[in-house]
Parts: sequence; structure tokens; C-alpha cells
Amino acid sequence: MNSINDETKKDLLNRLRRIEGQVRGIQKMIEQDKYCVDILTQVVAVRGALKKVGLMVLDEHTHGCVQRAIKDDEGEKIIDELMVVFSKFTD
Amino acid sequence: MNSINDETKKDLLNRLRRIEGQVRGIQKMIEQDKYCVDILTQVVAVRGALKKVGLMVLDEHTHGCVQRAIKDDEGEKIIDELMVVFSKFTD
Amino acid sequence: MNSINDETKKDLLNRLRRIEGQVRGIQKMIEQDKYCVDILTQVVAVRGALKKVGLMVLDEHTHGCVQRAIKDDEGEKIIDELMVVFSKFTD
Amino acid sequence: MNSINDETKKDLLNRLRRIEGQVRGIQKMIEQDKYCVDILTQVVAVRGALKKVGLMVLDEHTHGCVQRAIKDDEGEKIIDELMVVFSKFTD
Repeated sequence: MNSINDETKKDLLNRLRRIEGQVRGIQKMIEQDKYCVDILTQVVAVRGALKKVGLMVLDEHTHGCVQRAIKDDEGEKIIDELMVVFSKFTD
Repeated sequence: MNSINDETKKDLLNRLRRIEGQVRGIQKMIEQDKYCVDILTQVVAVRGALKKVGLMVLDEHTHGCVQRAIKDDEGEKIIDELMVVFSKFTD
Repeated sequence: MNSINDETKKDLLNRLRRIEGQVRGIQKMIEQDKYCVDILTQVVAVRGALKKVGLMVLDEHTHGCVQRAIKDDEGEKIIDELMVVFSKFTD
Repeated sequence: MNSINDETKKDLLNRLRRIEGQVRGIQKMIEQDKYCVDILTQVVAVRGALKKVGLMVLDEHTHGCVQRAIKDDEGEKIIDELMVVFSKFTD
């Protein structure tokens, strides 16, 4: 179970489908010998789109699961887990 | 035209197909209400895999196009372009 | 007021004093015409050290202020604020 | 020896002195128990300022040393070195 509401879920799925299409587009660019800088620009765009997806999930998680766990006096473990994820996110 | 050699091209396409599959996997995780932290871990993994793809293309570009342009005394413009891409890459 | 405990505060101050010294060291490297790549390696090291400082403050903040606010039913605003900081941190 | 011109050198030193002051400012914020989010905002600002410094040094290095080495048919090694620095920079 997670705490992503239905509207956000739909938004996330739309974004991920677009990202999937962009990744396929990069494959085509490589097969068609497109200019490296144009390929790189697309890679950067997809990474940015994925960051947005990650931040949206993080937001839902913190407002939802984390907040709930803290209210149930089980905050320590879930905050430690959040910090680990966040640290990886910044790499 | 770019300067990616055939072996690297094959490697890049394999990586991008795997990334495409991972992006589809994340969609499934969201549809199946998987735990946010597990979703986030996957998002971080895909961003890392895309970074590797980007660095590989950058490497080919610099060893290839950039080096060639510099030898033809047309280095300034292509280096400026490289710096712009690199700067975006670090965001 | 913040929620950084005394031991972490001491650790953070030690790290920041070391970072301050490293920044002065980079100035000296530039004045002494050191090799760019060695300068860049130092810049990367200092950025990494600052990331660690940031993650430590974030950890204290989340375990402290954020947890407390949530228990006092004032979680929404502080979590929004946390997300903004998170997002800037990943740029 | 590096290839940073005098004007850029002066600019870099000014930036680094400002960064040094900001790092001292963060120490003061911690000693004075300032709010964590304000401390984090400052940490993020200093990391951004250091990124700018790094990108400026990288620019000088690529336009200078790298370009020169390539013209002297010694490009391969210096490009490999550049890619390693690039890669660390994106972490």
C-alpha cells in the first residue's frame, strides 16, 4: 500500500508513458546517427522528467505514509528510510 | 552524423531498452499501489542508468566530434556547445 | 530555534571549518596557477562535503521540527516547506 | 600550469572569497540556533555557487589545456581525464 491519491496516480502514469516514449525516441536517434548533442539534450530532458516524478512520489509519501506513521508514534524508522532515499536521490 | 562507434551504439541501445522496461515497471508499480519508497528506489535507479548513457554519449562526442573540430581549427563553437550541455547535465 | 542536538552541532561546525579551509585552499590553488583538473577535484570534494552537511541538517530537521509539527497537527505546511528544500537540494 | 586567464582568475577569487564568507555565515547560523530550513537554503546556495566556479574552471580548461593538447596530437589522455572529472561533477 502507498498513499498516492488517484488524481496524482493518473498524472504520474501519464508522465511515465511520455518518458517511455522519450526513451524510445532516444533509441531511434542513436539508430539514425543523430548528433550527439541532440541525443544528450534528450537524455537530460528525460532525467529531469524522472526527477519530477520522483519528487511527486516523495511528496505523496511524506504527506501520507510518513505523516501517518509519525502520528502513530512510529516516525523514527520511516524518517530514517526517507533520509536514505533522499540521499540517493541527490547523487 | 555523430561519432558513436558500432559497439558503443549496440551497448547504448541495450541500456536504453532496459531503461524502457524499467520505466514500464515503474508504471506497473504505481498501478499496483506498491510502496512509495520502492517506487522511488526504482526512479533513482533509472536516473542513474540514464546518467551512465549520457556520460557514454558525452565521451564518444568529445573523443570524436569535438576532437575532430579542434583539429580543423573549429574548436571554439563546439566547446561552447559542450559546456552548455555539460552544465545542463549537472542540474 | 532548530532541533539540532549539541553533538551534531559540534560535528557540523567541525565540518564547516574544514570546508572553509578547503575553500581557502582552492583560492591558493588558483593564485598559484595549479592544474585545472586538480582545482576541479577539490571543488567536487567541497561540494560533496557540503552535501553531507546539508543531509545532516535535513535529518535533524525531519526527525525534530517536522516530527514535532506533525504531532501537533501542523504537518501540512512544514512538509510543503520540506519538499521545496528537497527539490532545491537536488538541482 | 593551467590556462585560466587573469580576468577569470580575479572573478573566481572573488567568488571563492564570497563562498568562504557564506560558509562562515552557515557556522554562525548553527551556533545561533537558526531555523534548519534557513541553514539548508544557505547550504544549497553555496553548493550552487561552487558549481558555477567548477563550470568556469572546466570551461577554461577545455578551451585551453584540452584544445592545446588535441592540437599537439595528445588529446586521448586529456579527454579521458576530462570525462572522469565530468562524471564526478555530476554526482
